[in-house]
Amino acid sequence: MSKVAILGFGVVGSGVAEVLQRNGAHIGEKLHGSVELKYILDVRDFPQSPFADRIIHDFAIIERDPEVDIVVETIGGARAAKEFTQRALAAGKSVVTSNKELVAKHGFELMELAQKNGVSYLYEASVGGGIPIIRPLKQCLAANEITEVCGILNGTTNYILTRMIRAGLSFDAALKEAQENGYAEADPTADIEGHDACRKICILASLAFGRHIDPEQVPTEGITNVSLADVAYADSCGRKLKLLGRAIRGEDGRIRAFVAPHLVEGENPLAGVEDVFNAITVRGNAIGDVMFYGRGAGKLPTASAVVADVMDAARNKDRPKYLDWGPGGESVTAPPDDVVSPWYVRAEASADALRGALGEITPLARAGAPENETAVLTASMPLGELKSRLAGVKAHSVFRVLED
Amino acid sequence: MSKVAILGFGVVGSGVAEVLQRNGAHIGEKLHGSVELKYILDVRDFPQSPFADRIIHDFAIIERDPEVDIVVETIGGARAAKEFTQRALAAGKSVVTSNKELVAKHGFELMELAQKNGVSYLYEASVGGGIPIIRPLKQCLAANEITEVCGILNGTTNYILTRMIRAGLSFDAALKEAQENGYAEADPTADIEGHDACRKICILASLAFGRHIDPEQVPTEGITNVSLADVAYADSCGRKLKLLGRAIRGEDGRIRAFVAPHLVEGENPLAGVEDVFNAITVRGNAIGDVMFYGRGAGKLPTASAVVADVMDAARNKDRPKYLDWGPGGESVTAPPDDVVSPWYVRAEASADALRGALGEITPLARAGAPENETAVLTASMPLGELKSRLAGVKAHSVFRVLED
Repeated sequence: MSKVAILGFGVVGSGVAEVLQRNGAHIGEKLHGSVELKYILDVRDFPQSPFADRIIHDFAIIERDPEVDIVVETIGGARAAKEFTQRALAAGKSVVTSNKELVAKHGFELMELAQKNGVSYLYEASVGGGIPIIRPLKQCLAANEITEVCGILNGTTNYILTRMIRAGLSFDAALKEAQENGYAEADPTADIEGHDACRKICILASLAFGRHIDPEQVPTEGITNVSLADVAYADSCGRKLKLLGRAIRGEDGRIRAFVAPHLVEGENPLAGVEDVFNAITVRGNAIGDVMFYGRGAGKLPTASAVVADVMDAARNKDRPKYLDWGPGGESVTAPPDDVVSPWYVRAEASADALRGALGEITPLARAGAPENETAVLTASMPLGELKSRLAGVKAHSVFRVLED
Repeated sequence: MSKVAILGFGVVGSGVAEVLQRNGAHIGEKLHGSVELKYILDVRDFPQSPFADRIIHDFAIIERDPEVDIVVETIGGARAAKEFTQRALAAGKSVVTSNKELVAKHGFELMELAQKNGVSYLYEASVGGGIPIIRPLKQCLAANEITEVCGILNGTTNYILTRMIRAGLSFDAALKEAQENGYAEADPTADIEGHDACRKICILASLAFGRHIDPEQVPTEGITNVSLADVAYADSCGRKLKLLGRAIRGEDGRIRAFVAPHLVEGENPLAGVEDVFNAITVRGNAIGDVMFYGRGAGKLPTASAVVADVMDAARNKDRPKYLDWGPGGESVTAPPDDVVSPWYVRAEASADALRGALGEITPLARAGAPENETAVLTASMPLGELKSRLAGVKAHSVFRVLED
């Protein structure tokens, strides 16, 4: 029998309460023991909620209650969430979180603190909403040396790109529609600038490669520079524009992680991931490529991932804890400049001028292109070479092409 | 530290030896303890193999060696494999298997025997090759009540259908090509008649719904009746022919499981699963749909799933074991006749005659169709109703249409 406290009664927190209640019998049966929701911490009151009697405002009540053995942190951000997580772990309570910012930034130190106190710090819900990805990476793919993790990690941007591709909406119009449908926040910066995807690829890369990777080590480009012209050129060569988070282990053992728009070949399963869906591909030296696909956000999917972790924490109270990854540092990563790929370049230049600069090129065409616009695919080269070749060229868009 | 014996040095068994050796350091690090391959049981000798010194021919050596705590069964079939599995479990050794026939047929009794002896019976590799699906179903989706599992579970048939669709090969020509490429056995019956997919959906359904489901309870139709005419009609309405294994929980709690060719809408992620790839979608009441995708077979992918289970068994030597599912029985399942869907019907009849028999229909067209051939999509109805409506109609092909 476990008693749970939820920190933060927002979308995910209230979803967790709902799933615990709705599937309670099923959960108890699977666990051979019940999970009971004892407290919900929030600054607000919720007099109309069926959980109103469990709302409290003082974290110390949870911290001091020895009955509470699992704390669910769905506050978000890295301030109060961090303090409460540290205090809960120090008080010998396992913590389950959906907070990608906190895990990406402070995952290693929080797992270390959990280990010191013989409890768990679990974060399945921090990446990919309800898609099971953390535990498969930790356990099912454990026999593999992983060479690359690559994914569509942010539903908001994928929705916007899908609407640009399928309905011909401009970026601004697609963003507005996403906001109207509740798929984008009033302040969409974290999504459209790629920060959210950056946090998620940091968590996946830390787990896959065993060392903490900080968001500041990951060059991040969002989708604000993607235009309908780029969408049309991509379509003309059978590709789709997707915002990818990638982490690649180089032969020197250092990790090249980055977030950027890519042209993805139509046959690649990632090209078929539309709307708010997420997908993550993992490449292992034994397994080849596997892909995990589903809703990357949403109240109940995310809550169901949190509750699966709660069940795991309840089941494994007495187990020795190992750290999921080791400490980070500058030497863990390397800039992705030496990652070789073909490139898409759209520039104010003639095809001849671009051929002169870039060497072997495949010119692309779109209806209604201005006369002085040229778009091409290049041969494979590292970013450094591309940059020096493009010196003096007025390039509007430069995106990587994802190779198989 | 664990010592392992492999039973059967075929494709998967030799892959397991290879992965244990190649990724040994990595595995030891993850496990905080080593895994050592002590014996390989086979009737043959392998004097050229780097593992020649570990080959033995008498199972009793393994059974009596107290150092061996994990036995990997990659013999296949349900005879020697069953006997050795029972003896290993009774001797207090955990067993890891890739043998879908044995798990589908005798999974419950073998898990019961494992539980009685305080050891594990693990079978991640029995479904979907290296795709992590068993553990996610067991753990990550544990907070969900699952309502349906549906998948492309057999790589051979998916390869054949893909070649029919994309290259216009006949069934026989595509099968021959699959055999030449090593994707189909000399005797392809188990694949093309759907038995392999049937075993896999049984395992997935047993795990998802918690009761043993026997292959004999699952109506199974293979792809030998799929013609190029059907492929063309499916294409004309934006759909692809796929062999699906499905298990659906009805409102009465009984499971409708079946294997049959389906027309799958082009936008459905399953439609994009080509060649020898497999994909499994799981629908939960909290998570919605999630999909797992990857190579469903092959030496190293399957071996890596086996080795992940070996690591799990090594890590959890001292843990209490719960049964993954309960006993089966006639009342666990119901015939899928009441599962409602639209249908694809190709018949020797006029459109008017088919409209008369079937009511509201959508006629389909293909180039070069004989004059007396008509193909249509029907409205949604159960199989029982369809059958009675088709009495007296000379139907060549009748396939379900997968609805979202």
